[in-house]
Amino acid sequence: MKPIKRALISVSDKTDLAAFAAALSKQGVEILSTGGTARLLIEQDIPVLEVAEYTGFPEMMDGRVKTLHPRIHGGILGRRGEDDPVMRENEIRPIDLVVVNLYPFEDTVARPDCDLPTAIEHIDIGGPTLIRAAAKNHRDVTVLCDPADYPRVLDAMAANGGAVDDQTRFDLAVRAFEHTAHYDGAIANYLGALIEQPEDAQAQPQAQTEALPRTLNLQFRKRQALRYGENPHQTAAFYVGRGGCEASVATAEQLQGKALSYNNIADTDAALECVKQFDEAPACVIVKHANPCGVALGEHLLEAYERAFSTDPESAFGGIIAFNRRLDGETAAAIVARQFVEVIIAPEVSDEAIAAVAAKKNVRLLRCGPWPVERQGYRDFKRVRGGLLVQATDLELSSAIKTVTQREPSEAERQDLLFAWRVAKFVKSNAIVYARDGMSIGVGAGQMSRINSARIASIKAEQAGLEVNGAVLASDAFFPFRDGLDQAAAAGIRAVIQPGGSMRDEEVIAAADEHEIAMLFTGMRHFRH
Amino acid sequence: MKPIKRALISVSDKTDLAAFAAALSKQGVEILSTGGTARLLIEQDIPVLEVAEYTGFPEMMDGRVKTLHPRIHGGILGRRGEDDPVMRENEIRPIDLVVVNLYPFEDTVARPDCDLPTAIEHIDIGGPTLIRAAAKNHRDVTVLCDPADYPRVLDAMAANGGAVDDQTRFDLAVRAFEHTAHYDGAIANYLGALIEQPEDAQAQPQAQTEALPRTLNLQFRKRQALRYGENPHQTAAFYVGRGGCEASVATAEQLQGKALSYNNIADTDAALECVKQFDEAPACVIVKHANPCGVALGEHLLEAYERAFSTDPESAFGGIIAFNRRLDGETAAAIVARQFVEVIIAPEVSDEAIAAVAAKKNVRLLRCGPWPVERQGYRDFKRVRGGLLVQATDLELSSAIKTVTQREPSEAERQDLLFAWRVAKFVKSNAIVYARDGMSIGVGAGQMSRINSARIASIKAEQAGLEVNGAVLASDAFFPFRDGLDQAAAAGIRAVIQPGGSMRDEEVIAAADEHEIAMLFTGMRHFRH
Repeated sequence: MKPIKRALISVSDKTDLAAFAAALSKQGVEILSTGGTARLLIEQDIPVLEVAEYTGFPEMMDGRVKTLHPRIHGGILGRRGEDDPVMRENEIRPIDLVVVNLYPFEDTVARPDCDLPTAIEHIDIGGPTLIRAAAKNHRDVTVLCDPADYPRVLDAMAANGGAVDDQTRFDLAVRAFEHTAHYDGAIANYLGALIEQPEDAQAQPQAQTEALPRTLNLQFRKRQALRYGENPHQTAAFYVGRGGCEASVATAEQLQGKALSYNNIADTDAALECVKQFDEAPACVIVKHANPCGVALGEHLLEAYERAFSTDPESAFGGIIAFNRRLDGETAAAIVARQFVEVIIAPEVSDEAIAAVAAKKNVRLLRCGPWPVERQGYRDFKRVRGGLLVQATDLELSSAIKTVTQREPSEAERQDLLFAWRVAKFVKSNAIVYARDGMSIGVGAGQMSRINSARIASIKAEQAGLEVNGAVLASDAFFPFRDGLDQAAAAGIRAVIQPGGSMRDEEVIAAADEHEIAMLFTGMRHFRH
Repeated sequence: MKPIKRALISVSDKTDLAAFAAALSKQGVEILSTGGTARLLIEQDIPVLEVAEYTGFPEMMDGRVKTLHPRIHGGILGRRGEDDPVMRENEIRPIDLVVVNLYPFEDTVARPDCDLPTAIEHIDIGGPTLIRAAAKNHRDVTVLCDPADYPRVLDAMAANGGAVDDQTRFDLAVRAFEHTAHYDGAIANYLGALIEQPEDAQAQPQAQTEALPRTLNLQFRKRQALRYGENPHQTAAFYVGRGGCEASVATAEQLQGKALSYNNIADTDAALECVKQFDEAPACVIVKHANPCGVALGEHLLEAYERAFSTDPESAFGGIIAFNRRLDGETAAAIVARQFVEVIIAPEVSDEAIAAVAAKKNVRLLRCGPWPVERQGYRDFKRVRGGLLVQATDLELSSAIKTVTQREPSEAERQDLLFAWRVAKFVKSNAIVYARDGMSIGVGAGQMSRINSARIASIKAEQAGLEVNGAVLASDAFFPFRDGLDQAAAAGIRAVIQPGGSMRDEEVIAAADEHEIAMLFTGMRHFRH
């Protein structure tokens, strides 16, 4: 390992730069630099050799061509011990450290005033080339593209007589390619969404939201290696996106318990996203096998939990429990005393709750922080062999709610209908949810026929000893025939909420009227598979 | 638009290069080139100016530094009409066309003899810089990184007096960034999987398969804009990966019918992947709402379809039908005569079948081609807010099948058990599948409790008028208690297949023995959510 003697520094993000450069300079490292970076260092009395002076080629075209010179890139790419003669011959001095970072392209194009020429002018050519060249030659060169890594490099230099060890250099080289891959991916996403796509315009006549780019370029960072995937014979890991995401399972802090499993993460996401729908009162969602098996509101959190639990005590065993309010000690104690639970997640967790859960060491307790009232959309993916289905997440609730039956629902029924509708949105299709008094009474999930989903909802209510008579029903998609309404009436259902839109809506409405059922149409379907 | 006067050509893939360069040369375009590309052109008597000659800087370090020179990059990046004086002053000639492509990094590292130094030596620095510079300055410069686009550029030049139109230049610039994003993503994936990850080793003690990289870099190409996603208010598109995928919904050719919808694609994938499991006999899988609602083998395809249909005629309505054999005319005619069907997919489709389906114009008929006996694995994704769960697909079937009961299954029972086991693998968890004589009798899907999934399987068999007595049962995960076996026995089940591994396996086996049920353990669970 040879000590670093010469560094090239040209950064967009100048955080901690002066101190870092001063430390290098103090150790006798010669600093090559350009433009604004050079000016900043000179102001700090740090000796700098301007790149243009070194190459003998002027900085030109408003900085478009600064470092693209063989005396620079030969100095980075030259193989020490092999290319030394040719470097001497061409007056190329070895550059041992390259410090370059790129202004995030997403931030550029996120500015409201950014037009295409502005975006293009911000595409950096010299910077990625320096980063890539240094990363390629990491055997001899250290590359830094993130100020957060400055201390690490100074520490390594201090420990190795001014040199940086192999492992650090390799690690930083990988970061460098991660950085450039992400940078060009962001450019391709932005430009690719601007390509004229006549077939898109045809397929999506309303051109509803942001265009989907011609190639989708994604980068996720590994947050956690997992013991296994959905099943023990499948390898797996949990990746997260870049920052800016609202409170979620991906941003949550684990306060105690075993490591989250693949299925824990998937179900915690389902439970948390479901409970986020309820602002008006303390709410609890219990998820098992990707489905809510109990959802309830309460005067306080304990009541919400106890009611959610009572929907289906059998399924709640080994479930995932999410809350929309700060978890208190009493509720936490009630959970761990009553049932086996895999995960508990809440926006905040009281000290008493932490103490209560501590009695069961394996229980995973997560705090995710508060979420905004105005929920963020994101892109949802479904994997198929050879491809990826991409869609906007299902954020909205309804387009226009209207009563279609002779009987208007009572205010209590209306509240229960809207409650059941929110639950149905998170139940696997076909979904039928029975509810009463802000509590799920029976959840019929994942059936190929709507009638069978309703039958399961009845079975579950019966198994839990809950009375269906007088409850309301939500269906995630329309009833194709009147038999669904007849069945609901026979079960004692008094009000129904569903999207409407069947060819036989009239027949279905007539059936509801016959049974004096009040029915709302929402105009919006919520399949979830 | 100014005509192209000077081109820089330096390619890895030399397909169609000589003819393209000759055509340029004939139109008076001056060609700058390097190394192997220059040699090839000179051999073809195409006049070439070597880059080293032009820059006055020798090609050095085995080609590591060739084109990284301001006379090259100033010529690409110079803004015509603005930077002309500085270009003249520094003897920089404008370069109007850049033809560069990169040797696919995945191909480099896929070679069995590729070690880390070889991989690193193959990382191209000059090439991506040329491509990115030309793409940035696409207002004045045309960039080509794929030989398939040569004719397009020649056509554009012919139509515009030697110039390339704005739209083509922009489109090619986007392709360029898609190309470099993918290239650096592949490098980051490869190098990121080599980073020492002590926590991984801990989480995955058996280090089962390929390491998951530190950042996951994905690129998908939009194959099809979709009218909407899972629901009409969600925008969506179907993206596919790069080639090399076995026959799948992503590679299938649509022979007729309406455009595939989001849910069609998801369900076609499920149906096709399920039917791929059956090699031994003609097989049919019917999927509805992501679940197989009928699966059967037959002497011939028509019989397989009719038996699959009879499992659940109600759910089969509007379903997706997949076959593992060439679709014949008789079977196709039977389907469209009997039922409303969204999609039919088969490895091959006879002319008679095409003619038969043509009677129903909306039916989507897909031919996917044959698949290999040795199935390919791929990475499966599950989206959660803020992150991505990544796992190896569930390719295997069982680790070690053994009889755990006093009674061995008969040969016929064993065949049915293995058949039911394969079906259960594709049913949403908890999955219970009843089967007899190579045909599903009842499918219990998507329940939070195993008992209820079994109950649904019974309900469905009853609804279809099928006799459960004497059938076999498959369960995707172990029975936690004996009640599942008692319930199965009461329904008339004679043999059971399940992973085993419950704390109460002994109790469950004792229950099976009491009922003279034969039971196999597979040692492998198949959750699918």
